[in-house]
Parts: sequence; structure tokens; C-alpha cells
Amino acid sequence: MKKVSEALGIVLEFSGKLGSETVSMDAALGRVLAEDIRANRDLPPFDVSAMDGFAVRSADLPGTLLIVEDIKAGDIPKIALEAGQCSRIMTGAALPKGADAVIRVEDAKQISADTVQMDIKTRPGHDVRLRGESMKTGDTVLNTGTEITPGAIGILATVKAKSFRVFRRPTVAILSTGNELESIDDPVDPCKIPDSNSHALMAQVQALGMTPRMLGIARDDPIELERHLRLGLESDVLLVSGGTSVGLHDYVRPTMEKLGIDMKFWRVSMKPGHPLAFGVLERSEGSRTLVFGLPGNPVSSMVCFEQFVAPSMRSMTGNTRPYHRTVTARLGQPIAMKPGRTEFVRVTLASDEQGYLAVPTGTQSSGVLLSMARADGLMVLPAECSGLPAGARVTVQLLDGTAFQDATGYIE
Amino acid sequence: MKKVSEALGIVLEFSGKLGSETVSMDAALGRVLAEDIRANRDLPPFDVSAMDGFAVRSADLPGTLLIVEDIKAGDIPKIALEAGQCSRIMTGAALPKGADAVIRVEDAKQISADTVQMDIKTRPGHDVRLRGESMKTGDTVLNTGTEITPGAIGILATVKAKSFRVFRRPTVAILSTGNELESIDDPVDPCKIPDSNSHALMAQVQALGMTPRMLGIARDDPIELERHLRLGLESDVLLVSGGTSVGLHDYVRPTMEKLGIDMKFWRVSMKPGHPLAFGVLERSEGSRTLVFGLPGNPVSSMVCFEQFVAPSMRSMTGNTRPYHRTVTARLGQPIAMKPGRTEFVRVTLASDEQGYLAVPTGTQSSGVLLSMARADGLMVLPAECSGLPAGARVTVQLLDGTAFQDATGYIE
Repeated sequence: MKKVSEALGIVLEFSGKLGSETVSMDAALGRVLAEDIRANRDLPPFDVSAMDGFAVRSADLPGTLLIVEDIKAGDIPKIALEAGQCSRIMTGAALPKGADAVIRVEDAKQISADTVQMDIKTRPGHDVRLRGESMKTGDTVLNTGTEITPGAIGILATVKAKSFRVFRRPTVAILSTGNELESIDDPVDPCKIPDSNSHALMAQVQALGMTPRMLGIARDDPIELERHLRLGLESDVLLVSGGTSVGLHDYVRPTMEKLGIDMKFWRVSMKPGHPLAFGVLERSEGSRTLVFGLPGNPVSSMVCFEQFVAPSMRSMTGNTRPYHRTVTARLGQPIAMKPGRTEFVRVTLASDEQGYLAVPTGTQSSGVLLSMARADGLMVLPAECSGLPAGARVTVQLLDGTAFQDATGYIE
Repeated sequence: MKKVSEALGIVLEFSGKLGSETVSMDAALGRVLAEDIRANRDLPPFDVSAMDGFAVRSADLPGTLLIVEDIKAGDIPKIALEAGQCSRIMTGAALPKGADAVIRVEDAKQISADTVQMDIKTRPGHDVRLRGESMKTGDTVLNTGTEITPGAIGILATVKAKSFRVFRRPTVAILSTGNELESIDDPVDPCKIPDSNSHALMAQVQALGMTPRMLGIARDDPIELERHLRLGLESDVLLVSGGTSVGLHDYVRPTMEKLGIDMKFWRVSMKPGHPLAFGVLERSEGSRTLVFGLPGNPVSSMVCFEQFVAPSMRSMTGNTRPYHRTVTARLGQPIAMKPGRTEFVRVTLASDEQGYLAVPTGTQSSGVLLSMARADGLMVLPAECSGLPAGARVTVQLLDGTAFQDATGYIE
């Protein structure tokens, strides 16, 4: 049985970034740049005003100045300032020759149509943005490997990069297995278990910005299973839900091995989720499929996805922040546990003046999906932990959004 | 000039949730339920095994038991256990009559084809999941107002809710204004400013799961501006970038007033971003457009979006967590500031054993979009703050993802 960190290490070893493709700006959010982006201009293009106000010679202040020009953003100033002169200027407009500072409109008192009184001192450069302060032509403004956030989109628009290279996102197929499963399209049969896993996994993949291919349910029949697995192996990632425990009726393991999938591990020392399998099929030079055998239990399946599949898929997209963001919290109630496996406890987060309080979401029975839907995060309890008192400092992985970081952030 | 909390209160007063619409499960992630979802079955449908192992009569243990049946998930057990008997059972399979506990396969030693030795004690209910433990027919499993997370999708799939009512998302239009702006499709003109705001705003809207309508650039001409504004006023939200400062060449304000937009405020006491305007056009009974006049400065525009527009739009979708999640951090370096306005300082977050360390991202000059692209969050410094030493405890709003919470989480 592998430790969580060991298992994660193996998974990430095979989760190198994929090739690149061109994407247009409006479809680029969340992708990762596969090329350096360079500035195509100086910004600001001249020394410009940072405020609406008056361009002045700083040495003239305090004083009453003659307004010699109105300069709007986009105008080229015509009049060089001489002693005792100023120009009315808009934010972003070019400073006239002679000016070295800007006085904001709130700090100036207009005393006639063309004179303004300023009672304050200033210094050269005050409220002036210098040419090239934001970017200089040819500068690399965004590096390969940068995640495309809204701020990055702003920069791409600034340099008119309407399309650019990003790393490809993995294609993902989802397969459920088991005779006991009932598809969402089947009528209710109390002897069967509704297949929730493939839909929850779909949503987990969607939350990463990707669209999975849904392969449905393969029955416990080696031929049907093999046919489904072959379809799934055309993708970069294949998620197989259920069927990887040690039970007698398990057709999955022999079929996976028959298909040439090199299984790296079958169990991980964690709770929930220890029957987690991982294998690799090398399809051709530089092209492989990662196969995750996720536990059939709905909560275990979701927890294993977030611990292993999400970091793997984010790494494949070139993202250097594959792990869910963690926060520190105080434990809201004492908790007992059996040492031995790393536990991921579903919690809600409440806030008080001392920070976050983590409270386990009702029953932690791994069958109870409601506790997962209600959780803000997973509290990670190290394997050697045998319980914690209320108020203990704990690490909580955020699951209520898409904040990620560059290290797991917890002690196993 | 409004305080941030005052301005936010006014915005949210007009950001009530919109009507509802039907959505299919595969397009529902991130939406908010507009109906209660009820269980259509008991789960588990019977008392079932939580493990692969042996169904036993707890009173028989420790002991050597006769295996009388193999029960797979989906089977109906045929043989009631008598003293000294057990059934081999799979996870999720129904317990046979007479059985009251399950011994996992690891804790049993098979000593012949049909006998198994168990050296441990157990108690009734051990590794058994009781009928209806997860859900009972008719129970409300998800309430109106629940955000649809992957866990919620799992529950919706469990009860076969293939489509359901969710609150409508606002339609959003984005308009840039100003003669100085150069569109992404124009050639570079050093006298002009590339329009990055409308693209960054596009991405900010996309990050909330919505697709904006891009209205392009309106020049400083009252007729052109009015025409563009009228188009934008067909949406639930209209974002107007630039043009709302107090400058001479501002056509936006009179045109907005002419169009019947009831302007609620024009400035907010924050940095960056104080020239932030907000107005409401009541179009008809229960139908209105919220108009945000965002600062022309790219960073200010982005910060104002996250502080005001994102909470407004999330509230309209029925989400009760409109605010970006905050974390506590230590300040990585001393910081000086002028008291008077609430400051939102762009920071990166690093981790050490004491938690997060917040470090301002280089220049905080509001023109420098790079510092926004690099930021993990915004450190919020209260208005009365006149500076902080290194190591001071600060509040940081996460911007590197989509984690949200139900309160702003900072002191203004």
C-alpha cells in the first residue's frame, strides 16, 4: 500500500505537460501559455498624467498659474510650459514639454477662466507615469508557463495577442463498472445502485475547465469491459469508477493487464479511498493514457479525484499549481481517529476573529455524498494522528472553488 | 464619496436573484438550485455491506464459520444465516437475513473452500450501512439556494434529476469608452491606449461562468455613446469602462442621466478605483439593468469588478456566497500608506510553517497590469491604517481561483 505522497509522486511522474495548440483570446482563460509574449509598444508611450488635473513645473508650486492648454488623452500637447504656466490635463494624456508633475483637480482652485491657484508643494514625477513604465517594446510581458488569468488576458489584449500557443488540455473519458449500477436513464430498481460517480466525476472534470467523454456503464463481463476500456484508452486520461477492490467478481484488473496497461499501484494508504489504482498505457512515442481506477464509493471517488486526478490533469496542461489551496483552521470539535492512514475529513469552514474554524460535516461515513456536497474543504489528518482536541490547528484543503497552489500544503 | 461597505450595500440591494430556468445536469455546475430536490428512493435500499468480506452474526465471533452463499452487489440473498454460518459479501451487497455485521476480507482467514476463521470480535452493525442511511424516499436532499458543486451533481444523479430549475444568470454587456482607446483590431498608434479593459472584464465575467456581450468602444461623442449604451441596457448588467471620472470631456454622465439611469453613487473611498459609478435603470416591472461605471485604469477596473460586480452578479444567480474567500497572512515587508481610503494591495502568497506570507507584487502603481496578473490576491488595508510593519497580520482576498464566501471577511 503506497503512502499518499509516494502515490502522488508516481502519478505526477507520468503527468508531464502535453503538446501545445493555438487558442483565441476569448477561449483562453485558465489555459497555460506555451510561448513567451512580448510587448509590441512602449506603455505609456510618453510621460503621461496619472490623474485628471493640471500639468505643472514642480518648481512653480505653491502658486497661481496660467492655464495655457487643455490636453485630453490621445492629444499631442502643443505648448511647452514656461514659468508660471500649466496645462489642464486628463488621466492618460501626454505631459507637455516643461511639465514634470501633475496636480490633481481636487488640489487646485480655479480662480478665473484661465488661472488656477494651488496651495500645495509637489515634487518632480508626482502623479506622472513615465514612458515605458508599464512595458517597453520587446520586453517579455508574459512567460511560457503563465496561467492565463483575467489580468493576463488584459496584458494579452494590451499587446494585441488575439491568439497564441497554450498547452493542450488532456482529453478525459469516464467509465463506470459494475452489474449493480443503474444508469440515470434506467427506471428505479431497489436492488441496484444509481450511478452517481460518473456524473460527479463529469462535474469535477468540468470544474477544471474540461469536458469529459462519458462512456457509460460497463457490466461485469470481460468482453464488454474490454470494449469500453479500449474506447477510453483513446483519451489522455481514463477514469474507471468501481471494480478495483479485491473482491472476487473483479474483472477490471485482469482486463487492464491484458490491454497492456502497466499498473503502478492498486492501493493508497488514505481514508476515504484506499482502493485507488493507477496505471499507464504507452500508446506510441510521447503519447500515453493514464488510467485511474477510482473507488466505487461516491465520496471516496470524489476525494481520490481531487487528490490525484486533478493534480495530474492540471500538470498535463502545464500548470505549476496542481494542488488545491490549503488554509489553516482551528478544529471546531474534538475528533477521534485510528492511526495508520492519512485521513481527508469533510469539513465546513466558519470564520471568527481568530480565523477559520473547521467543523466536520455530520457523518463521515464514506457512503454519504451529502456530506461531500456540503463540505467547503477536506481537513487533512496525518497518518500517525490518533485524534485531536477542539481548537487544534489543522490544515484544510479548499474544495469550494478553483484556488490552487504549488505544493500540497499538508503533512501526510 | 461612499465607503466601500456602503457602496457594496447599495449595489447588493439591487442585486436580488433573477428568475429561474430549467437546465440539464451537464450544464449545471456552478448554478444555484431554484427548487428543492427530493429523494426518489431509499439509499441504501436495504442494510448493505460497507466492505468486501463476510456477513456474519456478531455473536458467533471469534470463531470458524461455514460459508453458505456468495452475495454480489445487486443480488438478493437467498439463505438466512444460522449459528456458525456466514456469507461471502461484496461492498454494497444486501446483508442476508440473520447477519448483523460484516468482517472485512483482510480480517478473515479462509481455511478450506467453505470455511473461514475469524479471530476477532465484532459488534452488531459493524461495517454495515443501514437502509435509508444516505437518503429516504421523499427527503429533501438538496434545498433551493444550494450551489451546484460536483458533490451536488452526484446527488442529483443519484435521484435521477436529469434537469431541474436553477436561477438565471445575468446577461452582461461590456462597453469601453474614450477617444484615446485603440481596439485590438486597430494598428498600433503610439498616441492611443490599447483597450485592454474590455478583454480583462470579459475574462473576469467568464471566470464567474458567464459569457459577456462585447459592445466594443464608444467614442467621446454623445450620439455614439447613447447608441452603445442603449444596446447595453438590454442586458441585466452593463459594464462601462472609462469615462466616469470628473474630467471635462466626460460625456458618459449626462448621457446616462438622459437615458433614465438612476445613478446611486459616482465615487467610492478605495484605492485603486475610487471613480466607480453605479446606477440602476428600471426597465419594467421586475426587470432592471445595473450599470457599473468602472475606472478607465486597467488595474482599478479589475479591482472594482472583483469588489462590486462579482458579488452583484453572484447574488443575482441566487448564490449566498458572493464575496471572494479571504485568508489571514503575515505581511512580508513593511508597508507605508496614507490613511483615508481602504486599500486593496496586490500581493503574492507564499507559505511557510507559520502559514501564509503576503508580499506586495512590485509596483502598486495602478497602471501596471502585470502586477495584477501576478497577484494571488488583494491585501485589504483598512482606511484608517497608516502603514504596517513586516509580520503584521493582514487579510488577503484570494483572486487566484473561484473560492467565495458569505461575508467580505475584511475590516474596511
